[in-house]
Amino acid sequence: MGMHPFFYQVIAMNYNFFAPQQICFGWGRFQETGDLAASLGTRAFIINGSRSLESSGVIEELRQLLSRASIKSEFIRTISNEPEVSDVDQTTNLLRHWGAGAGDFLIGIGGGSGIDLAKAASAMITNQESDTVLDYLEGVGRGLKLTESPLPLLAIPTTAGTGSEATKNAVISSYAPPFKKSLRAEEMIPDIVLCDPQLACSVPPEITARTGMDAITQLLESYISCRAQPIPQALCLQGLKLAIPALPEAVENGNSRRGREAMAHAALLSGIALANSGLGMAHGVAPALGIHCKISHGLACAMMLPATLQANLSVRQQEYGEIYRFLYPDQTLSVEQAAESLITEIQQLNDRIHIPRRLSEVGVSQAQIPDLVASSRGNSMSGNPRQIPDGELTQILESLL
Amino acid sequence: MGMHPFFYQVIAMNYNFFAPQQICFGWGRFQETGDLAASLGTRAFIINGSRSLESSGVIEELRQLLSRASIKSEFIRTISNEPEVSDVDQTTNLLRHWGAGAGDFLIGIGGGSGIDLAKAASAMITNQESDTVLDYLEGVGRGLKLTESPLPLLAIPTTAGTGSEATKNAVISSYAPPFKKSLRAEEMIPDIVLCDPQLACSVPPEITARTGMDAITQLLESYISCRAQPIPQALCLQGLKLAIPALPEAVENGNSRRGREAMAHAALLSGIALANSGLGMAHGVAPALGIHCKISHGLACAMMLPATLQANLSVRQQEYGEIYRFLYPDQTLSVEQAAESLITEIQQLNDRIHIPRRLSEVGVSQAQIPDLVASSRGNSMSGNPRQIPDGELTQILESLL
Repeated sequence: MGMHPFFYQVIAMNYNFFAPQQICFGWGRFQETGDLAASLGTRAFIINGSRSLESSGVIEELRQLLSRASIKSEFIRTISNEPEVSDVDQTTNLLRHWGAGAGDFLIGIGGGSGIDLAKAASAMITNQESDTVLDYLEGVGRGLKLTESPLPLLAIPTTAGTGSEATKNAVISSYAPPFKKSLRAEEMIPDIVLCDPQLACSVPPEITARTGMDAITQLLESYISCRAQPIPQALCLQGLKLAIPALPEAVENGNSRRGREAMAHAALLSGIALANSGLGMAHGVAPALGIHCKISHGLACAMMLPATLQANLSVRQQEYGEIYRFLYPDQTLSVEQAAESLITEIQQLNDRIHIPRRLSEVGVSQAQIPDLVASSRGNSMSGNPRQIPDGELTQILESLL
Repeated sequence: MGMHPFFYQVIAMNYNFFAPQQICFGWGRFQETGDLAASLGTRAFIINGSRSLESSGVIEELRQLLSRASIKSEFIRTISNEPEVSDVDQTTNLLRHWGAGAGDFLIGIGGGSGIDLAKAASAMITNQESDTVLDYLEGVGRGLKLTESPLPLLAIPTTAGTGSEATKNAVISSYAPPFKKSLRAEEMIPDIVLCDPQLACSVPPEITARTGMDAITQLLESYISCRAQPIPQALCLQGLKLAIPALPEAVENGNSRRGREAMAHAALLSGIALANSGLGMAHGVAPALGIHCKISHGLACAMMLPATLQANLSVRQQEYGEIYRFLYPDQTLSVEQAAESLITEIQQLNDRIHIPRRLSEVGVSQAQIPDLVASSRGNSMSGNPRQIPDGELTQILESLL
């Protein structure tokens, strides 16, 4: 028998792992919504994260599918921005108005914004120690914890990106004061994920590129996180192998079934991975770029990813090499060469799908850097495999201007 | 960017995926049993699958941990054989005697036998359309389905083998008439898995070898199954990379923390994988060897595995190659060479841990082969990547005599 090192020299064999109880994945399986939803309750509250789903008739079709399964439905709202504190509070009030409670459930359909809003509202309607979600967010407000189970939630992702359908947190923004913080609890993981990659066919190329790079960033950052875990690492390898060739295909041909399937699956895996393993510097800086410079989350992640990989190369060369050699088993590179090749590969991917290289191209100025550094210190940054002091982060951001 | 084929040329991107809601894994984490169990109910019924857990004081410690968390516990029984119909029915009657119902939960601790018995009893106590589990088994009895949710279940595996802690079925045997069939329902997946690899340190070398090969067989068979799925495949690669070097280590040094951790994790992954992807010929024949020749399940799997890989080589060469190249990224073999090397590797592993090569060494005779062939046609065999007709299966078994 050959000799090879044990796989987990870095990864501690000590973990808690949470995932959605049930995942239904497949092209066209949106048609099964009614049957799936029937196990969650008898009345659905729909929260939609995309205007185009409404205009293209998907929301109407959703209501018909529910009706055929004898499930009443109420359309609560469409949200097309990343959810703010006021969005959550208003949505919770609407649910209260409808008397939401036992026997009811929520459906979050859309990208991360719609699903995050549904996750937050499903928790806030049963936890009413404060009348604002602010008091339940990490690091701001009163630091209240959920004490009651959220209402059940069916998540139907339609952009292959955030992986929110499989995570335990909802990201909530505020502009005055400026912050982007999470409502987080294991009970917030959606009960059922219905992932139909066909629903992403209408997502335009630019959004496909940005949300797809969010997923790829999550797969890479959770793999190398200082809280990395074995099961997520296994999922990340597969997700990266699928996503790296699939993303340009999905960007360049929105109707590519192969491209959309691979990206939807990879995004789902990225959500499972980050929920258990945490993230890193790119996801640490992305919220800062969002609140100070109004750069979309996916674009911010994409632009920060090559620099993040470079900044962690010294402590994660082995992991980069493992990933690259799994992607390209026919290449015979040393671990060192393979690690460098991974960083090049990601930069080339960004270039191919037209992600700008320079922060100044998307409106970031030198004067904003101190605020960006100060706002980057959240839960995501704490997963970065090594500490990035303020001075170094300043230099990194300046080098990207 | 390099060119490489999409990963899922064989695997359909259409799946349902189920897994335990919560997995807690780690050396010494048995101490956390009380806190974990508190989320399941206020009274625990303990079903134990190992006499040595009783004699070494682990069961007593379990009851103390529960008591400290204000959970009442009742010790129901120890089972040291693979559970039979009568075992399930008697256990259900005991639970009925104790008035088991809302607020109660079960703890299954031990190997596959103890956990399977707990899974079956947790379902039978709430589904009483018949007073025998026989009527709920696949392919025998009245074919009744579960209509009520089982009582919650905490699974604590102590042998790294069957992966029963993560599967949706319980295997139930009968000798008159002879069968080994499953009680199967998604609701039977344990709610919480607590996997403490330290609990396996007292498992003797022979049992370690056999149960470990059950896990390895599950990882390989589910990877190549005709119902293979992407998430299980990702888990199988990691499981195999860990288990193949770890099993000899755990067999040869029962206190090896590295060996026990890797095997416990790999066995858990094998359970998640098989529950979603199915198995193949080795697991098809193993129950037949169990009921006709009283060969233990793990030993039967181990002895059938090399022949199973050989029988499927013609249709799964690519997959074997992928697995082997993931195990040994420094070797530069063609896919064809790598595929052959995988089969050799598994045979050498069997040899190293003293699994007999010949069925005649464990008491199988030529005269039993027709019965073995007839009893091999269950759910597991249906996952084999190609159909194995009776004539071919007869030849395979004869060649192993």
